[in-house]
Amino acid sequence: MIAQIEPFHAIAISRIAHRLAVEGRSIIHMEFGQPSTGAPQSAIAAAHRVLDADGMGYWESPKLKERIARLYDERYGVAIDPEQIILTCGASPAFVLALSCLFEPGARVAFARPGYVSYRNTLKALYLEPVEIGCGAAERYQITAAAIAALDPAPEGLILASPANPTGTIIAADELTAIADVCRARGIRIISDEIYHGLSYVDPARCVLQDMDDALIVNSFSKYFSMAGWRLGWLVVPPDLIDVARARMGNLFLTPPSLAQHAGLIAMDCGDELEGHVATYARNRDALLRALPTLGLSEIAPPDGAFYVYADIGHLTDDSLAFCERLLRDTGVATAPGIDFDPVDGHRFIRFSFAVSTALVTEAIARMTPWFEAQGRASKRAESVA
Amino acid sequence: MIAQIEPFHAIAISRIAHRLAVEGRSIIHMEFGQPSTGAPQSAIAAAHRVLDADGMGYWESPKLKERIARLYDERYGVAIDPEQIILTCGASPAFVLALSCLFEPGARVAFARPGYVSYRNTLKALYLEPVEIGCGAAERYQITAAAIAALDPAPEGLILASPANPTGTIIAADELTAIADVCRARGIRIISDEIYHGLSYVDPARCVLQDMDDALIVNSFSKYFSMAGWRLGWLVVPPDLIDVARARMGNLFLTPPSLAQHAGLIAMDCGDELEGHVATYARNRDALLRALPTLGLSEIAPPDGAFYVYADIGHLTDDSLAFCERLLRDTGVATAPGIDFDPVDGHRFIRFSFAVSTALVTEAIARMTPWFEAQGRASKRAESVA
Repeated sequence: MIAQIEPFHAIAISRIAHRLAVEGRSIIHMEFGQPSTGAPQSAIAAAHRVLDADGMGYWESPKLKERIARLYDERYGVAIDPEQIILTCGASPAFVLALSCLFEPGARVAFARPGYVSYRNTLKALYLEPVEIGCGAAERYQITAAAIAALDPAPEGLILASPANPTGTIIAADELTAIADVCRARGIRIISDEIYHGLSYVDPARCVLQDMDDALIVNSFSKYFSMAGWRLGWLVVPPDLIDVARARMGNLFLTPPSLAQHAGLIAMDCGDELEGHVATYARNRDALLRALPTLGLSEIAPPDGAFYVYADIGHLTDDSLAFCERLLRDTGVATAPGIDFDPVDGHRFIRFSFAVSTALVTEAIARMTPWFEAQGRASKRAESVA
Repeated sequence: MIAQIEPFHAIAISRIAHRLAVEGRSIIHMEFGQPSTGAPQSAIAAAHRVLDADGMGYWESPKLKERIARLYDERYGVAIDPEQIILTCGASPAFVLALSCLFEPGARVAFARPGYVSYRNTLKALYLEPVEIGCGAAERYQITAAAIAALDPAPEGLILASPANPTGTIIAADELTAIADVCRARGIRIISDEIYHGLSYVDPARCVLQDMDDALIVNSFSKYFSMAGWRLGWLVVPPDLIDVARARMGNLFLTPPSLAQHAGLIAMDCGDELEGHVATYARNRDALLRALPTLGLSEIAPPDGAFYVYADIGHLTDDSLAFCERLLRDTGVATAPGIDFDPVDGHRFIRFSFAVSTALVTEAIARMTPWFEAQGRASKRAESVA
């Protein structure tokens, strides 16, 4: 029997949204974690030039590896060899590659619940054993050193995500150092998903390589660099895993898209434009944080980074998928149901992605305000009847 | 202990070739299986338009799925639902996806030796058990129904490749039907790698779906459509595996590159330009088939399709990697060593890829002719001394 993998329920919501749009409805897409801004203008200009000049065969860009290595120096003060960078077709295959480099079937790998749905599913698809660490509001929905120390037996691996999806919470620097210490002491290998780095509204997120030089780091051009559909990401491996990772990359995936590598190299020097996106997200976040309590959504994870708000809707429903569908059909606002991120408590959570324009966030709030008020009244009536 | 995966030795040859090029040497790249022609002009024009108009988020093109489904109708007379098409980042992840949809660790999967190196390595990386079927000149280096019938125990899966890499040989239509019959009778699932379809110099290759509607088919835009670095491929799954495959695609890989999907759709209607490439390959093949016997290479697999010649060099060496390096250093002609395709007999084979211009094939022959004559004389001297 092959491993059973759950689909993304947000995709079901998105499909309904697209059908409604075809019927002429105005839809605000807050269901997926992708910027609406597109690649930086200079990156697009570079892509035009390359399209006319390059045959685009199988290719790995040495310059892009060097530039990414420099990012680690500039952003974190961490020195890595460009050869430690494995360029991939996005973060998803980078994560598959990381797991394949470290673990064989049966290995136990821990991660936070709530968390990105692919952690659980990809582990299952590779016949690794998911070890979910339930993280609630008290832990800011994040893994702690104490929680890792308490795992018995110790897992072989740990997936960290800071800023996290779906919550946006960031692990504090001293806590991250403590987590690395526990993992070192217990022989636990860390895979750190740093795809939301660069998108912080408090202190910048710390790179796990600052605390542990044999951690594997997953990152991509899909979020900060606003190039989701270009399918370009990378994996940082320690020197002793370079050959292992290269051999797996060549066999399982071959090479990442050539044009994306050319454009991505240019995008990495488009700081002004990219920081403009971050400023937009910061405005969107502020607007949502102001509005959500008036919608009755006061239990929310602190969105330190990324572009998500994860809100408790337990007072309104115990079926987040049905709730998201109703919200969509009534208001045109598409969101992701908590069950995509948490099979235990996700039935009472909803995720808003605010990687859209501030005008759309404002419009979404305007549409949702009366709707949530009505939901609240209906919910109270139901309670008083019961 | 994680699975041990061999690197591609052709990459080592290619690296030397690039170093020699930097030193000013003239290099003819016949080591990799990729067209030198680039995407069709109309596809590139479409990419320019999309670059300026589309934000390129995560996306799967419904039109491309429909167009690919139509290809099966037009080329093979096979009706498939567009939903059976899973778009991927090239054939390599399509192959990973296919294996993941069908098998759990420990399953035995058979394939021809010689064969594409990734079959063996990807099986090993997924903890599946490779079952190599040694195929020699007598079987035209291809799997036969009799060989499948003789496997004891029956494997759970079979990988077919026709036209094959590294040999270019095509399985005859009646033999393919017989293979499907044996597999049906023995409960063996077929994954058919049809990446070289469209590149035939004898009869066109038959699609396994013409004989078995629950086979999985891997294909891509990298060969016939000349879009290797765009990283776009597809997997055809039977209706009962659509949900399984979609869930795995979303978790393990997410989506294929958006721009490549736009361009690929246009490329599928660029028949004249693409058939022009096939005509070039046919000329190149003729030139090589005329020249190789004069080089002393008379034992070659019949290159029915693809763009490879796989030649026996056993009279000259028992170390194909060292031979390829010597050939490269002396003549600037880069080739792939047989050990990439056959760990048993590959030490005495070499693969030429003729997906370059006819002028380069002519030049390569001119450079190799005196070199192989000298090798032959040296080899005879060594024999007479021994």
